[in-house]
Amino acid sequence: MASEGEIARNAATFAKTRMEAFSDGVMAIAITLLVLELAVRPPGSPLEQFWQAWPSYLAYLVSFLTIGAAWIGHNALTDVLDRADTILLRLNLVFLLVVAFLPFPTRLIADAIYEEGIDAERVAVVVYGLTLLAIRLAFFLMETYARREHLLIPGADDADLHDERKKFVFVATGYSITILLGILAPLAAVGLYFALAIVLVVPFRSVGQLLAGKQPE
Amino acid sequence: MASEGEIARNAATFAKTRMEAFSDGVMAIAITLLVLELAVRPPGSPLEQFWQAWPSYLAYLVSFLTIGAAWIGHNALTDVLDRADTILLRLNLVFLLVVAFLPFPTRLIADAIYEEGIDAERVAVVVYGLTLLAIRLAFFLMETYARREHLLIPGADDADLHDERKKFVFVATGYSITILLGILAPLAAVGLYFALAIVLVVPFRSVGQLLAGKQPE
Amino acid sequence: MASEGEIARNAATFAKTRMEAFSDGVMAIAITLLVLELAVRPPGSPLEQFWQAWPSYLAYLVSFLTIGAAWIGHNALTDVLDRADTILLRLNLVFLLVVAFLPFPTRLIADAIYEEGIDAERVAVVVYGLTLLAIRLAFFLMETYARREHLLIPGADDADLHDERKKFVFVATGYSITILLGILAPLAAVGLYFALAIVLVVPFRSVGQLLAGKQPE
Amino acid sequence: MASEGEIARNAATFAKTRMEAFSDGVMAIAITLLVLELAVRPPGSPLEQFWQAWPSYLAYLVSFLTIGAAWIGHNALTDVLDRADTILLRLNLVFLLVVAFLPFPTRLIADAIYEEGIDAERVAVVVYGLTLLAIRLAFFLMETYARREHLLIPGADDADLHDERKKFVFVATGYSITILLGILAPLAAVGLYFALAIVLVVPFRSVGQLLAGKQPE
Repeated sequence: MASEGEIARNAATFAKTRMEAFSDGVMAIAITLLVLELAVRPPGSPLEQFWQAWPSYLAYLVSFLTIGAAWIGHNALTDVLDRADTILLRLNLVFLLVVAFLPFPTRLIADAIYEEGIDAERVAVVVYGLTLLAIRLAFFLMETYARREHLLIPGADDADLHDERKKFVFVATGYSITILLGILAPLAAVGLYFALAIVLVVPFRSVGQLLAGKQPE
Repeated sequence: MASEGEIARNAATFAKTRMEAFSDGVMAIAITLLVLELAVRPPGSPLEQFWQAWPSYLAYLVSFLTIGAAWIGHNALTDVLDRADTILLRLNLVFLLVVAFLPFPTRLIADAIYEEGIDAERVAVVVYGLTLLAIRLAFFLMETYARREHLLIPGADDADLHDERKKFVFVATGYSITILLGILAPLAAVGLYFALAIVLVVPFRSVGQLLAGKQPE
Repeated sequence: MASEGEIARNAATFAKTRMEAFSDGVMAIAITLLVLELAVRPPGSPLEQFWQAWPSYLAYLVSFLTIGAAWIGHNALTDVLDRADTILLRLNLVFLLVVAFLPFPTRLIADAIYEEGIDAERVAVVVYGLTLLAIRLAFFLMETYARREHLLIPGADDADLHDERKKFVFVATGYSITILLGILAPLAAVGLYFALAIVLVVPFRSVGQLLAGKQPE
Repeated sequence: MASEGEIARNAATFAKTRMEAFSDGVMAIAITLLVLELAVRPPGSPLEQFWQAWPSYLAYLVSFLTIGAAWIGHNALTDVLDRADTILLRLNLVFLLVVAFLPFPTRLIADAIYEEGIDAERVAVVVYGLTLLAIRLAFFLMETYARREHLLIPGADDADLHDERKKFVFVATGYSITILLGILAPLAAVGLYFALAIVLVVPFRSVGQLLAGKQPE
């Protein structure tokens, strides 16, 4: 018969392992479902129809990178997570809710740019931006909760997680400004979302180390 | 050559591990597929079309929380599960069958509310409620079987699982009443499904402990 | 530096672990995608439209049980698998190919029954039956290969796997007869597919033991 | 309190484990989503409609085998991977981006062949070929990076990975030639893509050993 302490510890470890498995599943599915929204856009020759769908490709790319960045951040957090409690599991669910929602505004934005109505573009760009912002906020909430409740491995400080925190204020501000800008100039806003996705995904410190000839961490 | 006892034990552990992996997969996919049902609803300005789709968003939210709660319950059960036998694997399959079915009534309910025919709403609300109830019943069946056949870790009593049991009677009664109510007032029933999803997801004890300044379990 | 033997052993174990993970993924997705084919069938009152879709529900159920049974069989095989080699990984891929294909004939059968054209039903029932048979054959091929190449744990004989083998001849014969019958009486064939899915899923020995008051294996 | 070295090592191991889990998820979903593109092609008798969809079945098969081969290659790489660094995680994300994109050109090619316009076939065949080539290039990039940054297990040389490298130049050249050929004779190009997928999937060395009566590695 296992001791109560052992069981509690095991339960915490299981909870963390399955939180990872379920989150990996949801993020992997959300990122892969994006492809279902791609479609050529008539009229025109086959090549024209293919190129006219460029807003879909751009939206696909931005959303793919954003979910990819969310996965990398999630990864960095659970790397230093000692255990998950009941509340963290629910905060994680809220995080997954907004990640899983992203394919919908992605489709909105692709449709709106293609149809060239500025009103539709405005709505799409704002909804899209709010979803991107919500993903970051939900992640920030999870991370702050885990830190405050001492759920992290004592003494651990993951370099990636540190980067995530530094990027958070920058990116959250960036999204907020871009959402406002999106009301005036929706297409420019899409360009900025793309730039912010790149900022989220590219590990500048590691790339710098690599270019300087050192082994990245 | 491994002893027979060892192999039997390993087989049981493998069965449990893969039952978790497969279940995590199905629940993660079902929860993420919900987004495919979202769509703006013409006619009107882009903003009106976006808002007119509110029944989809509500149904998305209720179904997401319900599958999320089902995952958390499943998690709590397998945490204290020592091993899975052939029958438990099949009961788990029945549980997954109803969980994987949920996106269909979710679509029904979103379509029915949007189209504003009370007959369609009645059908949708009843089918939806029966599916929600079936998820709970299938889970209850699994848990009861595992307990009676002594498949749980001896001495273990997961606090989350205890909460699940306490919530079961309340929620099952709630669903039953709401299904009957749904025939008279379908929209009110949707509100109640939402309330019940919140009850299922929020860990009241842990939130209480957190608010009282203690570390939640 | 790890010894070559150790690396070879680890490689084999990793290959098996990831074969399980990938297979669980594909089967979980195929089983969950089935829900996308469900839709109410106009014309009529909302309740009529819901009931007229019964062929979809039946096809959903048969396909769900068949993939579920395929997963349980796969589970039983990998439980006693010591290691996977390059050829087994490819045979597994063929197995997944036919499993992942099943949602297509499922849709065919639901559409054909609904539209009530006996020609369409014939085509659908035959394609469906051939896919069900192909799933069993691909699994049988994998299992036979693993056994002949001594990839199984020596001395292990999983009771579930033994049941699978006993069921194989019965079920393969059943599918073959049903496919031929399907040309004459398509609807009766669907009923038989359902019966065979039940045979595949229900662990008669364990249920017998349970009813006799013994603990099932 | 864990030592810094231990934590760094654990972080690296976790990163690798979750990279595998996430990649398995994305590849499993992409390979299974292919089925959603299958549909019978009117007009004609049910049997004619079923057979007229042969380009879909061919495209399904080629894409399934290509993603399957990508998964086997990924498997071979991570088998000998000691740890993942921040940059490898991103290169892996680029690899997944092109793998997850494949269902779109698969649909293009099935539609184009069915509709029998040579212009549409040309566009589809070129886009499809470029995607297949991009999958191989992204994988080659990952593997080269991992090798150069000494992320592989020292002394390990996986036979599968060695095969992958030998096949790379052959297959990349094959894709390039086929893309050019596809502009002149699109249908012949599809046949070549199929042949290249077979080359990628079939483990010739192991099959040779098997036929020679030896146990394959």
